[in-house]
Amino acid sequence: MSNDLKLPPKSDFSNWYTEVLFRTAIVDKRITDSRGFYGYPPYGAQILSLLEDLFISELKNTGHFPIRTPTVIPETLLEIEKEHAEGFAPEVWTITHGRDNKELNIKKVLRPTGETIIYSLFSYWVRSHADLPLKIFEVRSVFRAEPNKAVFPLMRTHEFYWIEAHDVQENLSQANKQVSEDIEIFEEVIRNKVGLPFKRLKRPEWDKFAGAIYTCAYDVPLPDGKVLQIGTTHNLGQNFSKAFDIKYEDDDGELKYAYQTCFGPGISRILGAIVSIHGDDNGLILPPAIAPIQIVIIPIPKKDWDKKITEFAEKTFALLEEKFRVYLDNSEVTPGRKFYEWEEKGVPLRVEIGSREVEANKIMLVKRFNREKIKIDFEDMNEKIQEVIDHYPEELLNNVNVELKIDSAVSYDEIIELVEKNTHLIEIPFCDNDDCVEFLKDELNVKVRGVPLFEHGETSVQECEDIATKRAKDKTCIICNERKAKRMIYIARQY
Amino acid sequence: MSNDLKLPPKSDFSNWYTEVLFRTAIVDKRITDSRGFYGYPPYGAQILSLLEDLFISELKNTGHFPIRTPTVIPETLLEIEKEHAEGFAPEVWTITHGRDNKELNIKKVLRPTGETIIYSLFSYWVRSHADLPLKIFEVRSVFRAEPNKAVFPLMRTHEFYWIEAHDVQENLSQANKQVSEDIEIFEEVIRNKVGLPFKRLKRPEWDKFAGAIYTCAYDVPLPDGKVLQIGTTHNLGQNFSKAFDIKYEDDDGELKYAYQTCFGPGISRILGAIVSIHGDDNGLILPPAIAPIQIVIIPIPKKDWDKKITEFAEKTFALLEEKFRVYLDNSEVTPGRKFYEWEEKGVPLRVEIGSREVEANKIMLVKRFNREKIKIDFEDMNEKIQEVIDHYPEELLNNVNVELKIDSAVSYDEIIELVEKNTHLIEIPFCDNDDCVEFLKDELNVKVRGVPLFEHGETSVQECEDIATKRAKDKTCIICNERKAKRMIYIARQY
Repeated sequence: MSNDLKLPPKSDFSNWYTEVLFRTAIVDKRITDSRGFYGYPPYGAQILSLLEDLFISELKNTGHFPIRTPTVIPETLLEIEKEHAEGFAPEVWTITHGRDNKELNIKKVLRPTGETIIYSLFSYWVRSHADLPLKIFEVRSVFRAEPNKAVFPLMRTHEFYWIEAHDVQENLSQANKQVSEDIEIFEEVIRNKVGLPFKRLKRPEWDKFAGAIYTCAYDVPLPDGKVLQIGTTHNLGQNFSKAFDIKYEDDDGELKYAYQTCFGPGISRILGAIVSIHGDDNGLILPPAIAPIQIVIIPIPKKDWDKKITEFAEKTFALLEEKFRVYLDNSEVTPGRKFYEWEEKGVPLRVEIGSREVEANKIMLVKRFNREKIKIDFEDMNEKIQEVIDHYPEELLNNVNVELKIDSAVSYDEIIELVEKNTHLIEIPFCDNDDCVEFLKDELNVKVRGVPLFEHGETSVQECEDIATKRAKDKTCIICNERKAKRMIYIARQY
Repeated sequence: MSNDLKLPPKSDFSNWYTEVLFRTAIVDKRITDSRGFYGYPPYGAQILSLLEDLFISELKNTGHFPIRTPTVIPETLLEIEKEHAEGFAPEVWTITHGRDNKELNIKKVLRPTGETIIYSLFSYWVRSHADLPLKIFEVRSVFRAEPNKAVFPLMRTHEFYWIEAHDVQENLSQANKQVSEDIEIFEEVIRNKVGLPFKRLKRPEWDKFAGAIYTCAYDVPLPDGKVLQIGTTHNLGQNFSKAFDIKYEDDDGELKYAYQTCFGPGISRILGAIVSIHGDDNGLILPPAIAPIQIVIIPIPKKDWDKKITEFAEKTFALLEEKFRVYLDNSEVTPGRKFYEWEEKGVPLRVEIGSREVEANKIMLVKRFNREKIKIDFEDMNEKIQEVIDHYPEELLNNVNVELKIDSAVSYDEIIELVEKNTHLIEIPFCDNDDCVEFLKDELNVKVRGVPLFEHGETSVQECEDIATKRAKDKTCIICNERKAKRMIYIARQY
């Protein structure tokens, strides 16, 4: 095999990442005059759809219904929620001209997120307590005019895919319960289906979503020590219901402002995280749930055996096809070349069929992520492979190429040391003062990520905050070395 | 029931249509400052997804793979295909400002269709004959800056849903074969799955898609005598491959421009057509394939029987749920009110369960479109209902509320008469001259729709043209009454 076929090693993360996305046909950047807007060839588009389906299924199971709303919204809507508008203003693409190149009276913008357009409809849809909880979701792409230098495929782009779920509740306790449901959905998909390590964090006050009473975020570790936010849940309280006049009549006929939450799994970023965390020097490693091809069958030719091997491979394909997404690679190239190419594409399982397999009426199953080999009787095949697939995410999680490294620091020097060791999250006693926030950002390019959520049986977000506060008791902030620490908090470099 | 609950009669088409869409929660127009951009509540969003799924399934079965490409494209791409750009220029939304409200060097536009962005990627994806045919599709919304007065929900809007399939072939004969495949896919979904009458027409030269060598279009009849185009297939020949440099190396190592076709089922418009054609004075009538609820179970209470009826209804629900999308309406309102509401929502089948049904261990099945009643044994239920559902589209098609009325005229006066009788398509001998085209448009608001395709075993589009030419032999154009007729052609008023 010629050397130019080799991927850069994963230790050269940025080059490895863009090259693996391009070679495996997940992302195609070659769109002239359109930096930050990408094409997704069939392999990438299929993975994105399978990933969306995992969330759609969980959202439907928890009583959410799909809706569709416009991509383009009037600028006036953003202005209703001033706080919110200020949050997004610099990042918004603006449409100034319409038909016949005539300037518009009311400018339009490409939606950076769905709150304003969806809540303007909620003001009509919510009438009485019988309409609540109202639970909807939308599958779509959204737009952010990120600075061009920040653009990075899947992780930070001008148009990206996500799902947004918006829920309306009668009171704060129901809203808090919804936050827990969102967290469970995230856990089910991200940990149990695609095997990613992640940390749930309550963002600090100054970094919450504009208009939220608090923001829960989901951060994953990248190979270079940075973390990436791949989703959020915001408890919006009554802030948006007051801005958009979303009121319901309660049991006693009284009109009340509703409570709201929203949940946004970032589909593009989650795929970016899967590629970055699971992949290795040989290419992608896909969890079976999102693999367009879950199993590739590769016949190993042998003199005088070819007809028998071909027949056995076809019989195997026919049986596997009943339950799995499977591909029989009958092409003319060598088995070694096939191994190489399908490993690069991240196909989770490979079935090898040679003369020994035919003779023994068995197949050889090879797991992509650790190359473990398992001999399986032809008759038990579907059942045994189902078991392997069911355990795949858990095994992946226990063998991840990029572990979430968490540590704590008791001095500024220790922070520097840990950052140099590519520690993802560093816990410190912190005073929450602006000066210290700025200092961390300017000196170390490090941001405050918040306090961990629901790690030891806590039953509310407030309780999680209280624990972080209690643990910092009698401690001094290690940045200013002056002020009392308000809480134990995680800091990190971020994408 | 109070009168304000009644829909306008369907004879008052425009009011009936917008009211039925609103009441059944398919479309919500109440977005301030955003005429032509609509919201789709859960009922509408679910129907749109089911409709998309019908096409996605056919496209996958014919070897097409999904891709995703940007919503926003640089204006420079439209300029590459001059002819094409001229076709869309006045209808394009333009983005002039990006981050921090800075004016863009290269303006961006919201894509009115996918050719330019997808073909700029095809120029990289197509290398050798081994890559062909390349068959892809994209599911998305697109944008047209239609004049505000023309806006009409689902049928003509600023953002609408469609699927576009783009295929690349080695030669013209393969491209023509692809056109036939597209027509078959349309036939399968539109006639066999949703039971709509439609006419396949080859559009006249002056009305084909800019850049195509010919355009096939699919027109359906509306209640007011107009026709609506709900999809197109364009044979693009080598026009776009030359503009976008899409070349492949053939068997002999020679570089050749590829041939291309594209196929666009208009999802929004197809739903508009289903509502318009099948619906009646009582509301929607949905074909089972796209109904979010296929069967509604309504218990008919009777003194001393209520517990038994409830149990039987629940047993029925549990059994039906295995195979169908079913809803058990246990609410407190009267059965009459339930009948009314679920009929308005277009649920294709109703199951009534009263004391007689419990006693006989049977259910009463009622078809929405003709109210036919069928008694079915409890044990045979799933099998028998499957049969009813399988025949539903065909029955709908034979009982449509709006039939496609086609007639021919031998004089201008006859055209006027037929137009007044709301005839959808009128066949006339025609000279193709600009003056006559303009005259028809200005005097009768009638447009030339083209010649019928593949109605009598023809094997090519050219053969269909030849028949239309032959049939006009020795005839004079009935508009100018001077020039020789070039062909028999269909004219119609259109949406």
